[in-house]
Amino acid sequence: MKIIATVKEMQRLAQKAKRLGKRIGFVPTMGYLHEGHAALLRKCKKENDICILSIFVNPTQFGPHEDFQQYPRDKKHDEMLAKKEKVDIIFYPSVEEMYPSGYLTYIEIEKISDVLCGHSRPGHFRGVATIVAKLINAVNPDTLYLGQKDAQQVVVIKQMVKDLGYPTRVKALATVREKDGLALSSRNMYLSREERHQALSLYQSLRLAKELVNKDERSSQIIIQQMTKIIKKNSLAQIDYISCVDAKTLLPAKRLKGDILIALAIFIGKTRLIDNILIST
Amino acid sequence: MKIIATVKEMQRLAQKAKRLGKRIGFVPTMGYLHEGHAALLRKCKKENDICILSIFVNPTQFGPHEDFQQYPRDKKHDEMLAKKEKVDIIFYPSVEEMYPSGYLTYIEIEKISDVLCGHSRPGHFRGVATIVAKLINAVNPDTLYLGQKDAQQVVVIKQMVKDLGYPTRVKALATVREKDGLALSSRNMYLSREERHQALSLYQSLRLAKELVNKDERSSQIIIQQMTKIIKKNSLAQIDYISCVDAKTLLPAKRLKGDILIALAIFIGKTRLIDNILIST
Repeated sequence: MKIIATVKEMQRLAQKAKRLGKRIGFVPTMGYLHEGHAALLRKCKKENDICILSIFVNPTQFGPHEDFQQYPRDKKHDEMLAKKEKVDIIFYPSVEEMYPSGYLTYIEIEKISDVLCGHSRPGHFRGVATIVAKLINAVNPDTLYLGQKDAQQVVVIKQMVKDLGYPTRVKALATVREKDGLALSSRNMYLSREERHQALSLYQSLRLAKELVNKDERSSQIIIQQMTKIIKKNSLAQIDYISCVDAKTLLPAKRLKGDILIALAIFIGKTRLIDNILIST
Repeated sequence: MKIIATVKEMQRLAQKAKRLGKRIGFVPTMGYLHEGHAALLRKCKKENDICILSIFVNPTQFGPHEDFQQYPRDKKHDEMLAKKEKVDIIFYPSVEEMYPSGYLTYIEIEKISDVLCGHSRPGHFRGVATIVAKLINAVNPDTLYLGQKDAQQVVVIKQMVKDLGYPTRVKALATVREKDGLALSSRNMYLSREERHQALSLYQSLRLAKELVNKDERSSQIIIQQMTKIIKKNSLAQIDYISCVDAKTLLPAKRLKGDILIALAIFIGKTRLIDNILIST
Protein backbone atom coordinates (compact mmCIF):
# COMPACT_ATOMS: atom_id res chain seq x y z
CA MET A 1 0.00 0.00 0.00
CA LYS A 2 1.45 3.33 -1.14
CA ILE A 3 0.77 6.60 0.62
CA ILE A 4 0.97 9.60 -1.72
CA ALA A 5 1.04 13.22 -0.59
CA THR A 6 1.22 15.25 -3.80
CA VAL A 7 -1.09 15.74 -6.76
CA LYS A 8 1.82 15.35 -9.18
CA GLU A 9 2.87 11.97 -7.83
CA MET A 10 -0.74 10.80 -7.64
CA GLN A 11 -1.24 11.85 -11.27
CA ARG A 12 1.93 10.12 -12.38
CA LEU A 13 0.86 6.82 -10.82
CA ALA A 14 -2.70 7.12 -12.15
CA GLN A 15 -1.54 7.89 -15.68
CA LYS A 16 0.90 5.01 -15.60
CA ALA A 17 -1.90 2.66 -14.52
CA LYS A 18 -4.20 3.99 -17.24
CA ARG A 19 -1.52 3.46 -19.88
CA LEU A 20 -1.35 -0.18 -18.78
CA GLY A 21 -5.10 -0.41 -19.31
CA LYS A 22 -5.94 -0.77 -15.61
CA ARG A 23 -9.33 0.20 -14.22
CA ILE A 24 -9.06 2.68 -11.36
CA GLY A 25 -11.66 2.75 -8.59
CA PHE A 26 -11.73 5.68 -6.18
CA VAL A 27 -13.22 6.30 -2.74
CA PRO A 28 -12.90 9.96 -1.64
CA THR A 29 -13.24 10.41 2.15
CA MET A 30 -12.49 12.79 4.98
CA GLY A 31 -10.95 9.93 6.95
CA TYR A 32 -11.89 8.69 10.43
CA LEU A 33 -13.01 5.64 8.52
CA HIS A 34 -15.86 3.42 9.61
CA GLU A 35 -17.67 0.38 8.28
CA GLY A 36 -19.55 2.57 5.75
CA HIS A 37 -16.23 3.54 4.16
CA ALA A 38 -15.07 -0.07 4.39
CA ALA A 39 -18.10 -1.18 2.35
CA LEU A 40 -17.20 1.37 -0.34
CA LEU A 41 -13.59 0.17 -0.38
CA ARG A 42 -14.59 -3.49 -0.69
CA LYS A 43 -16.86 -2.74 -3.64
CA CYS A 44 -14.14 -0.56 -5.18
CA LYS A 45 -11.50 -3.25 -4.76
CA LYS A 46 -13.78 -5.89 -6.23
CA GLU A 47 -14.74 -3.90 -9.33
CA ASN A 48 -11.35 -2.44 -10.28
CA ASP A 49 -7.70 -3.29 -10.82
CA ILE A 50 -6.52 -0.49 -8.54
CA CYS A 51 -8.33 0.81 -5.47
CA ILE A 52 -7.45 4.35 -4.45
CA LEU A 53 -8.63 5.94 -1.19
CA SER A 54 -8.26 9.64 -0.53
CA ILE A 55 -8.25 11.08 2.95
CA PHE A 56 -8.63 14.85 3.11
CA VAL A 57 -10.61 16.96 5.54
CA ASN A 58 -11.62 19.60 3.02
CA PRO A 59 -11.75 23.09 4.56
CA THR A 60 -13.77 24.65 1.72
CA GLN A 61 -16.84 22.55 2.49
CA PHE A 62 -17.03 23.71 6.11
CA GLY A 63 -18.75 26.96 7.05
CA PRO A 64 -16.94 29.50 9.23
CA HIS A 65 -18.73 28.30 12.39
CA GLU A 66 -18.64 24.59 11.59
CA ASP A 67 -16.44 21.80 12.88
CA PHE A 68 -13.44 21.86 10.50
CA GLN A 69 -10.93 22.13 13.35
CA GLN A 70 -12.64 19.56 15.59
CA TYR A 71 -13.48 17.11 12.81
CA PRO A 72 -12.03 13.79 14.04
CA ARG A 73 -8.78 12.57 12.49
CA ASP A 74 -6.99 9.26 13.12
CA LYS A 75 -4.35 8.54 10.52
CA LYS A 76 -3.10 5.36 12.16
CA HIS A 77 -6.52 3.73 12.44
CA ASP A 78 -7.39 4.81 8.87
CA GLU A 79 -4.22 3.23 7.51
CA MET A 80 -4.97 -0.01 9.34
CA LEU A 81 -8.50 -0.14 7.96
CA ALA A 82 -7.20 0.68 4.45
CA LYS A 83 -4.62 -2.10 4.67
CA LYS A 84 -7.27 -4.55 5.82
CA GLU A 85 -9.41 -3.65 2.80
CA LYS A 86 -6.39 -4.08 0.51
CA VAL A 87 -6.37 -0.47 -0.67
CA ASP A 88 -3.58 0.00 -3.23
CA ILE A 89 -2.96 3.71 -2.79
CA ILE A 90 -3.93 6.24 -0.13
CA PHE A 91 -3.89 9.78 -1.47
CA TYR A 92 -3.27 11.86 1.62
CA PRO A 93 -2.55 15.48 0.64
CA SER A 94 -2.11 18.45 2.94
CA VAL A 95 -4.38 21.50 2.89
CA GLU A 96 -1.47 23.49 1.40
CA GLU A 97 -1.12 20.93 -1.40
CA MET A 98 -4.79 21.20 -2.38
CA TYR A 99 -5.29 24.92 -1.70
CA PRO A 100 -1.94 26.67 -2.03
CA SER A 101 -1.76 30.37 -1.31
CA GLY A 102 -3.38 32.29 -4.18
CA TYR A 103 -5.99 29.60 -4.85
CA LEU A 104 -9.04 31.10 -6.64
CA THR A 105 -11.09 28.45 -8.50
CA TYR A 106 -14.46 27.05 -7.38
CA ILE A 107 -17.12 24.90 -8.99
CA GLU A 108 -20.77 25.75 -8.52
CA ILE A 109 -23.67 23.48 -9.28
CA GLU A 110 -26.72 25.69 -9.47
CA LYS A 111 -30.12 24.94 -7.91
CA ILE A 112 -29.42 21.48 -6.43
CA SER A 113 -26.67 22.98 -4.23
CA ASP A 114 -28.99 25.52 -2.64
CA VAL A 115 -31.64 23.26 -1.08
CA LEU A 116 -31.70 20.82 1.87
CA CYS A 117 -28.19 20.73 3.43
CA GLY A 118 -27.07 23.40 0.97
CA HIS A 119 -29.68 25.76 2.38
CA SER A 120 -28.43 25.19 5.94
CA ARG A 121 -24.78 25.14 4.91
CA PRO A 122 -24.21 27.87 2.28
CA GLY A 123 -21.12 27.12 0.18
CA HIS A 124 -20.92 23.51 1.38
CA PHE A 125 -21.54 21.87 -1.99
CA ARG A 126 -19.37 24.41 -3.76
CA GLY A 127 -16.54 23.12 -1.56
CA VAL A 128 -17.53 19.50 -2.14
CA ALA A 129 -17.75 19.89 -5.93
CA THR A 130 -14.44 21.76 -6.07
CA ILE A 131 -12.47 19.19 -4.08
CA VAL A 132 -14.01 16.24 -5.91
CA ALA A 133 -13.11 17.78 -9.29
CA LYS A 134 -9.56 18.30 -8.05
CA LEU A 135 -9.42 14.72 -6.77
CA ILE A 136 -10.78 13.35 -10.06
CA ASN A 137 -8.11 15.32 -11.94
CA ALA A 138 -5.48 13.80 -9.66
CA VAL A 139 -6.75 10.21 -9.51
CA ASN A 140 -8.30 9.75 -12.98
CA PRO A 141 -10.86 7.21 -11.75
CA ASP A 142 -13.00 5.03 -13.97
CA THR A 143 -15.47 4.72 -11.11
CA LEU A 144 -16.00 6.82 -8.02
CA TYR A 145 -17.82 5.37 -4.97
CA LEU A 146 -19.97 7.43 -2.61
CA GLY A 147 -22.20 6.57 0.34
CA GLN A 148 -25.93 7.09 -0.07
CA LYS A 149 -26.04 8.57 3.45
CA ASP A 150 -24.93 11.84 1.87
CA ALA A 151 -27.77 11.70 -0.67
CA GLN A 152 -27.47 15.30 -1.84
CA GLN A 153 -23.73 14.95 -2.26
CA VAL A 154 -24.38 12.00 -4.57
CA VAL A 155 -26.82 14.07 -6.67
CA VAL A 156 -24.45 17.05 -6.81
CA ILE A 157 -21.38 14.99 -7.77
CA LYS A 158 -23.29 13.02 -10.40
CA GLN A 159 -24.50 16.29 -11.91
CA MET A 160 -20.99 17.78 -11.94
CA VAL A 161 -19.40 14.71 -13.47
CA LYS A 162 -22.06 14.63 -16.19
CA ASP A 163 -22.00 18.39 -16.86
CA LEU A 164 -18.22 18.77 -17.02
CA GLY A 165 -17.95 15.55 -19.03
CA TYR A 166 -15.59 13.60 -16.82
CA PRO A 167 -15.13 10.04 -18.15
CA THR A 168 -15.98 8.72 -14.68
CA ARG A 169 -18.91 6.70 -13.39
CA VAL A 170 -20.38 7.62 -10.00
CA LYS A 171 -21.79 4.80 -7.91
CA ALA A 172 -23.71 5.30 -4.68
CA LEU A 173 -23.79 2.46 -2.15
CA ALA A 174 -26.47 1.89 0.46
CA THR A 175 -26.08 3.57 3.83
CA VAL A 176 -24.45 1.28 6.38
CA ARG A 177 -26.18 1.32 9.81
CA GLU A 178 -25.56 0.17 13.34
CA LYS A 179 -27.74 -2.73 14.45
CA ASP A 180 -30.18 -0.28 16.01
CA GLY A 181 -30.49 1.71 12.78
CA LEU A 182 -28.17 4.67 13.38
CA ALA A 183 -26.48 5.61 10.10
CA LEU A 184 -22.71 5.35 10.39
CA SER A 185 -20.99 8.74 10.39
CA SER A 186 -17.63 9.98 11.58
CA ARG A 187 -19.58 12.63 13.50
CA ASN A 188 -21.32 10.00 15.67
CA MET A 189 -18.21 10.09 17.86
CA TYR A 190 -19.30 13.56 19.05
CA LEU A 191 -22.42 12.04 20.70
CA SER A 192 -22.79 11.44 24.45
CA ARG A 193 -24.56 8.27 25.59
CA GLU A 194 -27.90 10.05 25.87
CA GLU A 195 -27.44 11.89 22.56
CA ARG A 196 -26.55 8.60 20.89
CA HIS A 197 -29.86 7.22 22.15
CA GLN A 198 -31.90 10.18 20.93
CA ALA A 199 -30.11 10.09 17.56
CA LEU A 200 -32.03 6.89 16.80
CA SER A 201 -35.06 9.10 16.16
CA LEU A 202 -33.71 10.00 12.69
CA TYR A 203 -33.99 6.48 11.37
CA GLN A 204 -37.16 5.81 13.39
CA SER A 205 -38.84 8.72 11.63
CA LEU A 206 -37.65 7.48 8.23
CA ARG A 207 -38.99 4.00 8.96
CA LEU A 208 -42.34 5.51 9.89
CA ALA A 209 -42.32 7.48 6.64
CA LYS A 210 -41.73 4.28 4.72
CA GLU A 211 -44.60 2.56 6.55
CA LEU A 212 -46.92 5.44 5.73
CA VAL A 213 -45.94 5.27 2.06
CA ASN A 214 -46.52 1.53 2.11
CA LYS A 215 -50.02 2.28 3.46
CA ASP A 216 -50.54 4.51 0.40
CA GLU A 217 -50.01 7.85 2.11
CA ARG A 218 -48.84 10.24 -0.66
CA SER A 219 -49.03 13.64 1.03
CA SER A 220 -45.58 14.85 1.96
CA GLN A 221 -47.15 17.29 4.43
CA ILE A 222 -48.66 14.43 6.44
CA ILE A 223 -45.50 12.36 6.26
CA ILE A 224 -43.37 15.28 7.43
CA GLN A 225 -45.84 16.00 10.25
CA GLN A 226 -45.60 12.43 11.52
CA MET A 227 -41.82 12.40 11.25
CA THR A 228 -41.66 15.72 13.11
CA LYS A 229 -43.68 14.22 15.97
CA ILE A 230 -41.15 11.42 16.44
CA ILE A 231 -38.20 13.79 16.42
CA LYS A 232 -39.86 16.21 18.85
CA LYS A 233 -40.24 13.47 21.45
CA ASN A 234 -36.48 13.87 21.95
CA SER A 235 -35.49 16.72 24.24
CA LEU A 236 -32.02 17.14 22.74
CA ALA A 237 -33.21 17.12 19.12
CA GLN A 238 -33.60 20.27 17.05
CA ILE A 239 -34.92 19.98 13.52
CA ASP A 240 -32.82 21.59 10.78
CA TYR A 241 -35.05 20.24 8.00
CA ILE A 242 -37.29 17.30 7.12
CA SER A 243 -38.08 17.19 3.39
CA CYS A 244 -39.63 15.10 0.66
CA VAL A 245 -38.07 15.98 -2.69
CA ASP A 246 -37.73 14.65 -6.20
CA ALA A 247 -34.71 12.31 -6.11
CA LYS A 248 -33.09 13.91 -9.19
CA THR A 249 -33.99 17.60 -9.13
CA LEU A 250 -34.22 17.83 -5.31
CA LEU A 251 -37.26 20.05 -5.80
CA PRO A 252 -39.98 19.75 -3.13
CA ALA A 253 -42.55 17.05 -3.84
CA LYS A 254 -46.02 17.88 -2.49
CA ARG A 255 -47.29 14.50 -3.57
CA LEU A 256 -45.04 11.46 -3.50
CA LYS A 257 -44.81 10.24 -7.06
CA GLY A 258 -41.92 8.58 -8.88
CA ASP A 259 -38.48 8.54 -7.24
CA ILE A 260 -38.59 10.47 -3.99
CA LEU A 261 -35.87 11.30 -1.49
CA ILE A 262 -37.03 11.70 2.09
CA ALA A 263 -34.20 13.42 3.91
CA LEU A 264 -33.64 15.08 7.24
CA ALA A 265 -30.99 16.94 9.18
CA ILE A 266 -31.32 17.07 12.95
CA PHE A 267 -29.15 18.64 15.59
CA ILE A 268 -28.73 16.26 18.51
CA GLY A 269 -27.20 18.56 21.06
CA LYS A 270 -24.51 20.37 19.07
CA THR A 271 -24.03 17.57 16.57
CA ARG A 272 -25.75 17.86 13.18
CA LEU A 273 -26.75 14.46 11.85
CA ILE A 274 -28.31 13.59 8.49
CA ASP A 275 -30.10 10.55 7.17
CA ASN A 276 -32.42 9.69 4.27
CA ILE A 277 -34.28 7.02 2.37
CA LEU A 278 -35.10 6.72 -1.30
CA ILE A 279 -38.56 5.48 -2.22
CA SER A 280 -40.18 4.70 -5.55
CA THR A 281 -43.94 4.97 -5.82
CA MET B 1 -8.61 15.27 -40.87
CA LYS B 2 -11.42 13.97 -38.69
CA ILE B 3 -14.40 16.08 -37.66
CA ILE B 4 -15.89 14.98 -34.32
CA ALA B 5 -19.23 16.18 -32.95
CA THR B 6 -19.61 14.42 -29.59
CA VAL B 7 -17.70 14.55 -26.31
CA LYS B 8 -17.76 10.76 -26.06
CA GLU B 9 -16.14 10.20 -29.43
CA MET B 10 -13.61 12.98 -28.80
CA GLN B 11 -12.72 11.39 -25.48
CA ARG B 12 -12.40 7.96 -27.03
CA LEU B 13 -9.93 9.21 -29.65
CA ALA B 14 -7.97 11.25 -27.12
CA GLN B 15 -7.68 8.36 -24.67
CA LYS B 16 -6.59 6.04 -27.45
CA ALA B 17 -3.89 8.50 -28.46
CA LYS B 18 -2.74 8.91 -24.86
CA ARG B 19 -2.51 5.14 -24.45
CA LEU B 20 -0.17 5.09 -27.45
CA GLY B 21 1.97 7.68 -25.70
CA LYS B 22 1.16 10.50 -28.13
CA ARG B 23 1.38 14.15 -27.13
CA ILE B 24 -1.85 16.03 -27.73
CA GLY B 25 -1.83 19.75 -28.54
CA PHE B 26 -5.07 21.70 -28.43
CA VAL B 27 -6.27 25.02 -29.83
CA PRO B 28 -9.75 26.00 -28.53
CA THR B 29 -11.49 28.60 -30.72
CA MET B 30 -14.88 30.07 -31.56
CA GLY B 31 -14.15 29.59 -35.25
CA TYR B 32 -14.14 32.21 -38.03
CA LEU B 33 -10.47 31.46 -38.08
CA HIS B 34 -7.83 34.00 -39.03
CA GLU B 35 -4.06 34.18 -39.18
CA GLY B 36 -3.88 34.46 -35.37
CA HIS B 37 -5.53 31.06 -35.03
CA ALA B 38 -3.33 29.72 -37.82
CA ALA B 39 -0.22 30.73 -35.85
CA LEU B 40 -1.53 28.79 -32.83
CA LEU B 41 -2.26 25.75 -34.99
CA ARG B 42 1.20 25.79 -36.57
CA LYS B 43 2.88 25.91 -33.14
CA CYS B 44 0.54 23.20 -31.87
CA LYS B 45 1.26 20.96 -34.86
CA LYS B 46 5.00 21.46 -34.49
CA GLU B 47 5.15 20.67 -30.78
CA ASN B 48 2.80 17.67 -30.62
CA ASP B 49 1.98 14.35 -32.23
CA ILE B 50 -1.69 15.22 -32.60
CA CYS B 51 -3.12 18.69 -33.22
CA ILE B 52 -6.73 19.17 -32.16
CA LEU B 53 -8.75 22.29 -32.98
CA SER B 54 -12.11 22.96 -31.36
CA ILE B 55 -14.68 25.27 -32.92
CA PHE B 56 -17.52 26.24 -30.62
CA VAL B 57 -19.24 29.58 -30.22
CA ASN B 58 -19.82 29.29 -26.49
CA PRO B 59 -23.14 30.85 -25.42
CA THR B 60 -22.26 30.99 -21.70
CA GLN B 61 -19.48 33.52 -22.25
CA PHE B 62 -21.79 36.03 -23.96
CA GLY B 63 -23.91 38.44 -21.96
CA PRO B 64 -27.66 38.74 -22.70
CA HIS B 65 -27.15 41.84 -24.87
CA GLU B 66 -23.96 40.69 -26.56
CA ASP B 67 -23.33 39.31 -30.03
CA PHE B 68 -23.79 35.54 -29.57
CA GLN B 69 -26.34 35.30 -32.39
CA GLN B 70 -24.45 37.58 -34.77
CA TYR B 71 -20.98 36.20 -34.00
CA PRO B 72 -19.56 35.27 -37.41
CA ARG B 73 -19.49 31.60 -38.39
CA ASP B 74 -17.97 30.05 -41.53
CA LYS B 75 -17.58 26.31 -41.24
CA LYS B 76 -16.34 25.82 -44.80
CA HIS B 77 -13.58 28.40 -44.57
CA ASP B 78 -12.57 27.13 -41.10
CA GLU B 79 -12.24 23.58 -42.41
CA MET B 80 -10.08 24.76 -45.29
CA LEU B 81 -7.79 26.68 -43.00
CA ALA B 82 -7.60 23.70 -40.61
CA LYS B 83 -6.71 21.37 -43.47
CA LYS B 84 -4.03 23.76 -44.65
CA GLU B 85 -2.49 23.78 -41.16
CA LYS B 86 -2.64 19.96 -41.07
CA VAL B 87 -4.99 19.80 -38.09
CA ASP B 88 -5.62 16.15 -37.18
CA ILE B 89 -9.00 16.51 -35.50
CA ILE B 90 -11.60 19.27 -35.45
CA PHE B 91 -13.87 19.00 -32.42
CA TYR B 92 -17.06 20.67 -33.56
CA PRO B 93 -19.83 20.07 -30.99
CA SER B 94 -23.31 21.58 -31.00
CA VAL B 95 -24.63 23.81 -28.21
CA GLU B 96 -26.94 20.93 -27.15
CA GLU B 97 -23.95 18.60 -26.91
CA MET B 98 -22.06 20.94 -24.58
CA TYR B 99 -25.02 22.31 -22.62
CA PRO B 100 -27.83 19.76 -22.71
CA SER B 101 -31.12 20.62 -21.06
CA GLY B 102 -30.71 20.50 -17.27
CA TYR B 103 -27.10 21.72 -17.36
CA LEU B 104 -26.13 23.30 -13.99
CA THR B 105 -22.34 23.38 -13.46
CA TYR B 106 -20.12 26.46 -13.69
CA ILE B 107 -16.53 27.25 -12.80
CA GLU B 108 -15.70 30.54 -11.13
CA ILE B 109 -12.25 32.00 -10.79
CA GLU B 110 -12.48 34.65 -8.11
CA LYS B 111 -10.93 38.13 -8.24
CA ILE B 112 -9.16 37.92 -11.63
CA SER B 113 -12.51 37.30 -13.36
CA ASP B 114 -14.07 40.48 -12.00
CA VAL B 115 -11.70 43.13 -13.34
CA LEU B 116 -10.96 44.57 -16.82
CA CYS B 117 -13.14 42.74 -19.38
CA GLY B 118 -14.78 40.79 -16.54
CA HIS B 119 -15.98 44.07 -15.04
CA SER B 120 -17.57 45.12 -18.34
CA ARG B 121 -18.82 41.63 -19.13
CA PRO B 122 -20.15 40.02 -15.91
CA GLY B 123 -20.14 36.24 -16.16
CA HIS B 124 -17.90 36.23 -19.24
CA PHE B 125 -14.94 34.44 -17.65
CA ARG B 126 -17.23 32.06 -15.78
CA GLY B 127 -18.44 30.96 -19.21
CA VAL B 128 -14.89 30.84 -20.58
CA ALA B 129 -13.56 28.80 -17.64
CA THR B 130 -16.50 26.40 -17.78
CA ILE B 131 -16.21 25.65 -21.48
CA VAL B 132 -12.43 25.31 -21.36
CA ALA B 133 -12.68 22.82 -18.46
CA LYS B 134 -15.25 20.84 -20.46
CA LEU B 135 -13.02 20.94 -23.53
CA ILE B 136 -9.97 19.83 -21.54
CA ASN B 137 -11.99 16.91 -20.15
CA ALA B 138 -12.94 15.97 -23.70
CA VAL B 139 -9.59 16.51 -25.43
CA ASN B 140 -7.09 15.57 -22.70
CA PRO B 141 -4.42 17.91 -24.01
CA ASP B 142 -0.80 17.94 -22.92
CA THR B 143 -0.57 21.53 -24.09
CA LEU B 144 -3.23 24.14 -24.74
CA TYR B 145 -2.50 27.15 -26.98
CA LEU B 146 -4.07 30.59 -26.52
CA GLY B 147 -3.58 33.96 -28.16
CA GLN B 148 -2.08 36.72 -26.06
CA LYS B 149 -4.61 39.15 -27.55
CA ASP B 150 -7.06 37.83 -24.96
CA ALA B 151 -4.60 38.54 -22.13
CA GLN B 152 -7.08 38.19 -19.29
CA GLN B 153 -8.37 34.93 -20.73
CA VAL B 154 -4.82 33.60 -20.63
CA VAL B 155 -4.44 34.58 -16.96
CA VAL B 156 -7.83 33.09 -16.02
CA ILE B 157 -7.26 29.79 -17.85
CA LYS B 158 -3.75 29.42 -16.44
CA GLN B 159 -5.15 29.96 -12.94
CA MET B 160 -7.93 27.42 -13.44
CA VAL B 161 -5.63 24.77 -14.87
CA LYS B 162 -3.25 25.24 -11.96
CA ASP B 163 -5.95 25.36 -9.27
CA LEU B 164 -7.94 22.36 -10.47
CA GLY B 165 -4.72 20.45 -11.12
CA TYR B 166 -5.17 19.61 -14.78
CA PRO B 167 -2.06 17.91 -16.17
CA THR B 168 -2.02 20.44 -19.01
CA ARG B 169 0.40 23.20 -19.92
CA VAL B 170 -1.01 26.51 -21.12
CA LYS B 171 1.01 28.44 -23.69
CA ALA B 172 0.18 31.95 -24.84
CA LEU B 173 1.43 33.08 -28.26
CA ALA B 174 2.06 36.66 -29.33
CA THR B 175 -0.83 38.63 -30.81
CA VAL B 176 -0.83 38.52 -34.61
CA ARG B 177 -1.45 41.91 -36.24
CA GLU B 178 -2.29 43.34 -39.61
CA LYS B 179 0.54 45.27 -41.26
CA ASP B 180 -0.89 48.53 -39.88
CA GLY B 181 -0.96 47.14 -36.32
CA LEU B 182 -4.62 46.14 -35.89
CA ALA B 183 -4.81 43.01 -33.74
CA LEU B 184 -6.48 40.15 -35.63
CA SER B 185 -9.95 39.35 -34.30
CA SER B 186 -12.97 37.62 -35.72
CA ARG B 187 -14.93 40.69 -34.68
CA ASN B 188 -12.94 42.93 -37.06
CA MET B 189 -15.36 41.83 -39.78
CA TYR B 190 -18.05 43.96 -38.09
CA LEU B 191 -16.08 47.14 -38.86
CA SER B 192 -16.97 49.58 -41.64
CA ARG B 193 -14.12 51.14 -43.62
CA GLU B 194 -14.10 54.23 -41.39
CA GLU B 195 -14.39 52.17 -38.19
CA ARG B 196 -11.53 49.95 -39.38
CA HIS B 197 -9.42 53.08 -39.74
CA GLN B 198 -10.30 54.44 -36.28
CA ALA B 199 -9.68 50.99 -34.75
CA LEU B 200 -5.97 51.56 -35.37
CA SER B 201 -6.03 53.90 -32.38
CA LEU B 202 -5.94 50.92 -29.98
CA TYR B 203 -2.51 49.80 -31.06
CA GLN B 204 -1.33 53.37 -31.58
CA SER B 205 -2.13 54.11 -27.94
CA LEU B 206 -0.30 50.96 -26.82
CA ARG B 207 2.76 51.90 -28.88
CA LEU B 208 2.74 55.32 -27.26
CA ALA B 209 2.52 53.66 -23.82
CA LYS B 210 5.54 51.57 -24.66
CA GLU B 211 7.47 54.64 -25.81
CA LEU B 212 6.63 56.44 -22.57
CA VAL B 213 7.82 53.45 -20.54
CA ASN B 214 11.02 53.35 -22.58
CA LYS B 215 11.48 57.02 -21.65
CA ASP B 216 11.23 55.96 -17.99
CA GLU B 217 7.67 57.07 -17.36
CA ARG B 218 6.39 54.90 -14.48
CA SER B 219 3.10 56.59 -13.54
CA SER B 220 0.15 54.59 -14.85
CA GLN B 221 -2.02 57.70 -14.48
CA ILE B 222 0.11 59.64 -16.96
CA ILE B 223 0.32 56.72 -19.35
CA ILE B 224 -3.44 56.20 -19.28
CA GLN B 225 -4.00 59.95 -19.80
CA GLN B 226 -1.81 59.95 -22.90
CA MET B 227 -3.47 56.80 -24.27
CA THR B 228 -6.90 58.31 -23.63
CA LYS B 229 -5.94 61.38 -25.69
CA ILE B 230 -5.12 59.22 -28.70
CA ILE B 231 -8.36 57.24 -28.45
CA LYS B 232 -10.47 60.39 -28.03
CA LYS B 233 -9.22 61.81 -31.32
CA ASN B 234 -11.47 59.21 -32.95
CA SER B 235 -15.11 60.26 -33.22
CA LEU B 236 -16.45 56.68 -33.33
CA ALA B 237 -14.41 55.48 -30.36
CA GLN B 238 -15.86 55.04 -26.88
CA ILE B 239 -13.56 53.92 -24.06
CA ASP B 240 -14.68 50.90 -22.06
CA TYR B 241 -11.43 50.78 -20.06
CA ILE B 242 -7.72 51.55 -20.30
CA SER B 243 -5.74 49.94 -17.48
CA CYS B 244 -2.26 49.19 -16.22
CA VAL B 245 -2.31 46.10 -14.02
CA ASP B 246 0.00 43.52 -12.52
CA ALA B 247 0.40 40.84 -15.20
CA LYS B 248 -0.35 38.00 -12.78
CA THR B 249 -2.87 39.29 -10.25
CA LEU B 250 -4.49 41.80 -12.65
CA LEU B 251 -4.61 44.26 -9.75
CA PRO B 252 -4.21 47.95 -10.66
CA ALA B 253 -0.61 49.10 -10.75
CA LYS B 254 -0.20 52.75 -9.79
CA ARG B 255 3.50 52.59 -10.55
CA LEU B 256 4.81 50.39 -13.36
CA LYS B 257 7.11 47.88 -11.71
CA GLY B 258 7.81 44.26 -12.60
CA ASP B 259 5.58 42.54 -15.17
CA ILE B 260 2.78 44.86 -16.21
CA LEU B 261 -0.14 44.36 -18.55
CA ILE B 262 -1.38 47.47 -20.31
CA ALA B 263 -4.80 46.59 -21.67
CA LEU B 264 -7.72 48.39 -23.19
CA ALA B 265 -11.22 47.77 -24.48
CA ILE B 266 -12.71 50.30 -26.88
CA PHE B 267 -16.03 50.41 -28.65
CA ILE B 268 -15.56 51.46 -32.26
CA GLY B 269 -19.14 52.13 -33.25
CA LYS B 270 -20.98 49.11 -31.89
CA THR B 271 -17.98 46.79 -32.02
CA ARG B 272 -16.03 46.20 -28.83
CA LEU B 273 -12.33 45.65 -29.54
CA ILE B 274 -9.56 44.73 -27.12
CA ASP B 275 -5.79 44.87 -27.28
CA ASN B 276 -2.85 44.83 -24.88
CA ILE B 277 0.88 44.75 -24.42
CA LEU B 278 3.01 43.15 -21.73
CA ILE B 279 5.94 45.13 -20.44
CA SER B 280 8.68 44.30 -17.96
CA THR B 281 10.35 47.11 -16.08
